[in-house]
Order: sequence, then C-alpha cells, then structure tokens
Amino acid sequence: MNIRYVIRQLGLLCIVLSLVMLAVAFAAALIWDKSTGPARHPFWAFLASACLGSLLGGVMWYASQPDSKTLGRREALLLTALSWLVGAALSGLPFYLWTVLGSATGHRFSQPINCYFEAMSGLTTTGATTLIGIEQLPHTLLLWRATTQWLGGLGIVVLFVAVLPGLGMVGKRMYSAEMAGPDKEGITPQIHETAQVLWLIYLGLTVAETVALRLAGMTWFDAVCHTFATMATGGFSTRDSSVGGYEPLSVTIIIIVFMVLAGVNFGLYFQLIHGRLRAIWNDVELRAYLAILLVASAVVVVSIADEAIVMTDGRQYEPGWGRAIRDGVFTTVSLQTATGFCTADFDRWPFVAKAVLVMIMFVGGSAGSTAGGIKVIRVVVAFKVMASELERAFRPNVVRPIKVGNATVTPELRQGTIAFVLGWILLFGAGTGALMVFEPVGAMDMTTAATASITCLSNVGPGLAKVGAVENFAWLSAPSKLALCLLMVTGRLGVFAILVLLHPRFWRSR
Amino acid sequence: MNIRYVIRQLGLLCIVLSLVMLAVAFAAALIWDKSTGPARHPFWAFLASACLGSLLGGVMWYASQPDSKTLGRREALLLTALSWLVGAALSGLPFYLWTVLGSATGHRFSQPINCYFEAMSGLTTTGATTLIGIEQLPHTLLLWRATTQWLGGLGIVVLFVAVLPGLGMVGKRMYSAEMAGPDKEGITPQIHETAQVLWLIYLGLTVAETVALRLAGMTWFDAVCHTFATMATGGFSTRDSSVGGYEPLSVTIIIIVFMVLAGVNFGLYFQLIHGRLRAIWNDVELRAYLAILLVASAVVVVSIADEAIVMTDGRQYEPGWGRAIRDGVFTTVSLQTATGFCTADFDRWPFVAKAVLVMIMFVGGSAGSTAGGIKVIRVVVAFKVMASELERAFRPNVVRPIKVGNATVTPELRQGTIAFVLGWILLFGAGTGALMVFEPVGAMDMTTAATASITCLSNVGPGLAKVGAVENFAWLSAPSKLALCLLMVTGRLGVFAILVLLHPRFWRSR
Repeated sequence: MNIRYVIRQLGLLCIVLSLVMLAVAFAAALIWDKSTGPARHPFWAFLASACLGSLLGGVMWYASQPDSKTLGRREALLLTALSWLVGAALSGLPFYLWTVLGSATGHRFSQPINCYFEAMSGLTTTGATTLIGIEQLPHTLLLWRATTQWLGGLGIVVLFVAVLPGLGMVGKRMYSAEMAGPDKEGITPQIHETAQVLWLIYLGLTVAETVALRLAGMTWFDAVCHTFATMATGGFSTRDSSVGGYEPLSVTIIIIVFMVLAGVNFGLYFQLIHGRLRAIWNDVELRAYLAILLVASAVVVVSIADEAIVMTDGRQYEPGWGRAIRDGVFTTVSLQTATGFCTADFDRWPFVAKAVLVMIMFVGGSAGSTAGGIKVIRVVVAFKVMASELERAFRPNVVRPIKVGNATVTPELRQGTIAFVLGWILLFGAGTGALMVFEPVGAMDMTTAATASITCLSNVGPGLAKVGAVENFAWLSAPSKLALCLLMVTGRLGVFAILVLLHPRFWRSR
Repeated sequence: MNIRYVIRQLGLLCIVLSLVMLAVAFAAALIWDKSTGPARHPFWAFLASACLGSLLGGVMWYASQPDSKTLGRREALLLTALSWLVGAALSGLPFYLWTVLGSATGHRFSQPINCYFEAMSGLTTTGATTLIGIEQLPHTLLLWRATTQWLGGLGIVVLFVAVLPGLGMVGKRMYSAEMAGPDKEGITPQIHETAQVLWLIYLGLTVAETVALRLAGMTWFDAVCHTFATMATGGFSTRDSSVGGYEPLSVTIIIIVFMVLAGVNFGLYFQLIHGRLRAIWNDVELRAYLAILLVASAVVVVSIADEAIVMTDGRQYEPGWGRAIRDGVFTTVSLQTATGFCTADFDRWPFVAKAVLVMIMFVGGSAGSTAGGIKVIRVVVAFKVMASELERAFRPNVVRPIKVGNATVTPELRQGTIAFVLGWILLFGAGTGALMVFEPVGAMDMTTAATASITCLSNVGPGLAKVGAVENFAWLSAPSKLALCLLMVTGRLGVFAILVLLHPRFWRSR
C-alpha cells in the first residue's frame, strides 16, 4: 500500500478545495455580501478555513514523498474514500467558523456535527439539511453550500482527472470508480480528453440552466444556486420551502428538464457530440430510465389527482389534474434522480404515491450520471439475473446468455450486480436499525428511520414522516447523523467503496 | 408438460389427506369429543369433508390416465405448488363445514378465507391464526389443526415418497425440492429408504416429546397437539395464550429442546444413526445454527433483563434474570426455528430485542429441517459471497474458492444463493407493500405490515404490533389474507417454487 502517495494526493485535494472556497468567498463578498460588520463574518470564516485547509494540504503534500507514483486499485479506493471523508470536514469548517466569529452560539452550525453533515450532504450531492431559516443565511454560505454539491456532482475525482493531467493510470481507475456502473463503450479510452469534454458538458449544461432560470424570473443568485444543486442532483435550495417557494410554471419545467438531463449517463452526451445518435437511441439504460420515470410519474399523478396539494410553503391547492401533474411529475423526477428538490409536501400523499417514490429512490438514475441510487442499469441486469435464476429452477441445464443491448453480461458481472443490489438493501436495513437504536425510545418511528436511511444511502435528501419534505435532520442525535454521513458517502461511491476499508485483506499486501 | 400425471398425483394426495382427516375425526370422537349433540358437529363436518375429498381425489385419479409416468422437474414443481394450494383448501373444508352444521354464523370459521388461511398456516407450518377463544374449539378441530402442521412439517412430499414407493424419480426430485437447500452428502442416494428412515426419526422424536410433555404435567391431548406443532416448527397451540399458559418450567425447557432439534438438518440424524459423529461435529450449518441461536438469545436476554415480563395470558413478572433467560431464550428459539410459540408478549420488549428477533426470522433454521426462513446455510454462503465481492473491488484478478466445510461452492450456487436471499427480501418488501395497499387507510402501520409479511414468508407465526404475540390475523381483509397465504407457501417451498409458475417459459416445452 503506497500510503504516502495517497496522503500526497489528499493534500492536493485540500489545497484545491481551499482555493475554490476562497473564490466563492470573494465572489460572494464582491457581489452579494457587500455590507461590512456582521455580514463580513462569513468572509473571514472562509478565509480562515481556506488558509487552514491549504496549510494542512501543503504539509500533507510536502511531508509525503512517495517512493513511486504508482497508484494501485487499493490506493485509488482509499484515496476516493478519504477524499469525501476529509473533504467534508474541510468543507464544513467555514460553517462552523462562521458561528464562532459571529458568536452565533444558538445557530445549528455551532455544533460541528451539523456542519460535517451539511458538507457531506453537499459533497455527496444528497441535499439532506440540518437547517431551518435558510433564507437568513448570508449569501456566501448559501453559495458555498451549492458549490459543494456542484463539486461533488462533477466528482472531485473527475475534477482531479481533468485538472491534474499528471496522474496517468490513476485517472483511469478512479474514473471507473466514479462511473459506478458497468462501463460504457467509448468512454474509457483517452480518459484525459474525455474527462475534459465531460467537464465542458457539465459546465455547458450549468450555464444553460442558470440562464434559463434567470429568464424564468429567478434572481441570478438563486438561479446559480439552484442550477448547481440541479446539475449535481443535489437538492440544496436557498429557501426552506425549496422549489415550492417559486411560483412560475416555467421554473418547475426548467428544473424538471435539467434534473432528467443530469440523471442521464454523461457518456451519452459524449456520443451526442460525436453525432452517434443511433448509439443513444439504442441505449438500454436510457430507455429503461425514461420508462421508469414515465410509469412512476403516471402512477403518482393518478394517485394524487383527488388530493388537495399542500405546498412546502404552506399554500394549499384544491384537487385537480393541473397541480397533480405538475407536482407529481416534479416530485417523481426529483426523487428518482436523487435530487431531492420539493414543491409539494409529498408526505401527505396517499400510500401508493409514497411507496412508488420510495421504490424509485432505490432505483435512482443512470450510471455515469450525477444521480444516486442503485442505478437503472444495475436494476435492469438484476431483474434479468433473477428471471434466469427462476428459469434455472425448472431447466437447470439451459444456460441463456444475459444481454444488455449487444453486450453479454459476464457471470462475474451477474454475480457482482445482484451482490451490489443485496448489499444496498442490507446497508439500508443496517442504517434503519442504527437510527432506531441511536435515538431515544419513542423519538423514532420505522417510517422515519427507514426513509432517512434510504434517502441518505441513495443521496436523495428528503424522506418521509419526521424527515419529510418540510422537515430537516437537525433533531437527530450525533451518532445518527454520523451514521447517515457514512451512508451518504457509501452510497455515493457505490456500496463497496467504504466497506472495503473494513475488509482485513485490504490492508494486507497479498 | 405431463399435466395428467400431475393431476393424478394430486388426486392421490386428496385421498390420503381425506383418510388422515377421517382418522383424526374418529380418534377425537372416540377419546375426547364423546358427547352427542352439538359436540358431534365436528365429526360430521370431517366425515363430509373426507368424503368430498376422496371423491374429488378419486375422480382426479381415474380421469387422468397419463401417457407416461415420467415426472420432469417442471411437473414436480407444479405438483409441489398445487399440493399446498389445493391441500390447504381441502384441509380448511372441515373448519368451514363445522360452522355450517352448527349454524355458527358468527364464528370466524364461517368465512371461508379464514378457514383457508388457517389450513395454509397449518400445512406450511407457519402457525399464524385467525382465531381467538381457541380453548372453546372442539378437540377434533384442535387436533386437526395440529395435524395439518405435523403433516406439513414432515412434508406431504416426503410422505408421498415414503408412502408411495412407485414414483421412482419423482421421489428424488421432489425430495430435493423439499430439502430447500444445498444437498447434504449421504442423503440423496437410495432416496426411498432414506425417506423411510427420516419418517421414523420424525415419528420417534414426536413420541419422545409427547411423553416428555405428558410427564411435565400436560394432558395427553395438549401434549400431542403441542408436540405436533413443535416437531413441525408450526406453532399452533390449544390455548390463546400459547405456551405462556403453561406454568411448569419443565414444559418450557422440553419445548425449547425439541424446537432446537426440529430446526436441525434431519440428514444429521441419519448420520447419527450411522454413527458418523465426526460428520455431525464438522457440520458447518449446525455450528452456525447453534452459534446464531446462542448469540441472539444472549442479546435478547440482556436487553430484557431490566424489563417487566408480561406473559401472553396477562400475568406480569418483575424484572429479573430468571424470567429474562427463560422467556428470552424460549422466544428466540421459537422465532428462529420459525415455530412461533409464545410465552411472553415480546411486542412490549425494547427495540433491540425486537430487531434481533425480526432478523433471526429472516435467517431461520437449518436446510433439511422443518424450520422456515432463508436457512442458515444460505446465510453463511451469502455472507461469504458478499465478502468475496468486497475483495474483488480491490483485487479483481484474485479468485478465491468459497468453501463450506470441505465442499467448494460452485459459481452457479454462489449466484443462486444470493439470488435466493435477494428474492426473499424482495418478496418480503412486496408482501409489506401489498398489505399496506389492501388495508384501508390508517388501519395498517409499517411495523405490522412488515412483520406480518416476514412472519408468513418465513413460516414463523406471530409478528409485531397488530399481529404480535397476543394478537391474531382475523382483522385483516380477504385480499391481505390471500397475499399472506401466497407468502406462506412461497416461503415454505423456497421462493422460486411458486414464482416459477409465473415464468412464461415454464409453460413452454422449450
């Protein structure tokens, strides 16, 4: 285990994060948080955090002179895991320092665990928050919150691959880890150029959505923050009522479109640029992804058509198809892509709607997108494997190849995929149990525990009941929050990425 | 598909069931239900049912002259599934006719769905009941209830193999279906003799427990009924308060011992008879089974040591180690072996105890026993597969064989095992969802739905909350009861046995 090289790269990450932090603080201070006095506190908090971060990063960088620059698979996995675990600590620091500088002892960010939770929720593009009164937060903090999501969405890893061309093999390996799904053809070769193209695509979509939201009536600030959260399928908003606070239908539609786009395999945009439309049309995962979105939306819309819709800001609408379609589709897209924006309080919806929403939380978006969950392609393969197992019960000697498009799924991948799905469900169960145990008797119910567990594991954001659309995660105990942080990073990196660190053989050379 | 031969065998089953029914009715009428008048109603109900059953069976037998006597795997699966589905209908018939003859329109058995549920619960050795006031039921009905469990436990299938030596290959194939787990060495050859030996072992253990319970102070009738329910890991009692109604410590201990014995792979008794003690000592599943029982019991006992114990008959005990050990161990053994006898109302226990109890409901007993659940050996293999998948994340080229004892688990079995576990969990989820949808809004909570689903799928009996130790299943709607019946038979036959019938290729010749 080339641990020195891991630490060195981690140091680099801290420096890069600090620089971004600084840029955000300067931008916000120049444009939005112009007043002096208490409003300046966030700027100093960010300056101090950035200094601390780059100092720490510099020490890690210079102190770890690696024997070689080879980064094996184990090193890559360790680095990925530590990037998120350490990155969240650094990203949460300015939240905490802001309360210290401003002597805001009563604020939720005065508890370090809340800052860590918020930063982890940001970097993993989850969007679960411990905050209430989000509107009163200085613009600097809100922008940083959104930026952590945007960074997480692109993947600190892809950032590393794009920004630092000197890593060679690392790029390829970490990239495939970030892809978190069966490889797509045409993505892996020339990883460096590909990563740069992806970065530009991400940037292009970001600019497009920001302009669209501005034209739809949002302020530039809200447009930027919501775009960051959309493209990352994160879900942090600048308001307590989330997207429910914005009246125009155009805002809802724009965000729906870009959530769907963010949940598509980014490799397909690569194909699009190269004009390979047939490849896109034939993509099994894209078809399945859109089909699930369509069917789930239809079921949700029909099941709430007779219900009064209560918005996240308390407004209430009479039952009707208009609102049912608008909020049903928005919520379905938001939860399947694991964005987690809310317009209506779906916790009040009938059981069928909630059951469908929880199911699609498990499914998630496409592999190679910023979306969370098990991922559509895995669900498709898992279904095919289960069907073939069923057939084996009565035709043990018939071996039928399992195909996804033109590619045959290897036996290793078959086993790997259902192991992944089983692992996801077991982690969901373990998370639910942990929350029940960590909270005092009577404070936690099964629905809350179960949906908090899956919403964090699948990087969605809101759950049901006490962690529903109009609730937040502040009331949970510190152990519960830590457990949820672990679920978020485990889910973000694909079940095995964190668990491997617990495998005894991971630390042995053989 | 040799459908005629399937129907013919099904006819035979109906005839055999009718004969047993008749024997039970005569025995009960001669010994216990001697009075004339209303007490005779059950006898006539059984006589009518037996006549109807053997008539139906006879027609099926004679009308289906098969072209050949070859019974393929598909035919065997279909026959197994139909045996339980049709067998439950016939077994539930006397319950229903009893209310018709006695004009007991208010009784729960006057609803056919309750009769079917009760009979299915019996034949699948589940033990979930729709009854209250069990003590007031005539002895004939109580004995029949217990007998359905005993029959189910031995396996109508094994009965067929032992009683009817003319089936040749059928025996072997159905036997391996009934084993519902990786084959044990030494069991499969000479299936006919083996089945007879197993039958004698089952009978021997039954006699031993009956005598033991009689000596411990139970009446002969109660001893027989409880023994039938213990050996089948069924859990039907002759009292509403289940085993909680019997004071003596010796009763508790005897039932614990025989529940543990019933949850052991019966192949091991075969080894015992042949003096192969080393094979027993080295058996991986036996060790894991006892280890899980031990650890789970310890956790449950410790977690309830500070709690007042409320018994199923309402008696209450002060907190203390004595009762905690007695009722903690009894409940753990009862739920892991999927028996479902209750002494204390474990629904009042702390979350940790309940969580452990639900977890071991999933695990279940050993393969090749009468116990339910996923089965210990599958859990062991699944764990090893998951660990190997974890290792593959960082060492993709290292292939380590997975061993159970001396045997290597084949890739097919690895995939098959985790597919089985995943299937179990998905069925559990589907069952939970179905119950939530089938019940009116507000009548069903998540805990009730989830534990009702797993307790029926794993053939345990009681669940938590509204289907807890002192509750019953009568309040559920008919669709819910039907769904639970399907879960019971699906779980009893090993997930795929019922689902295969839904596979389109099952009905195609190729």
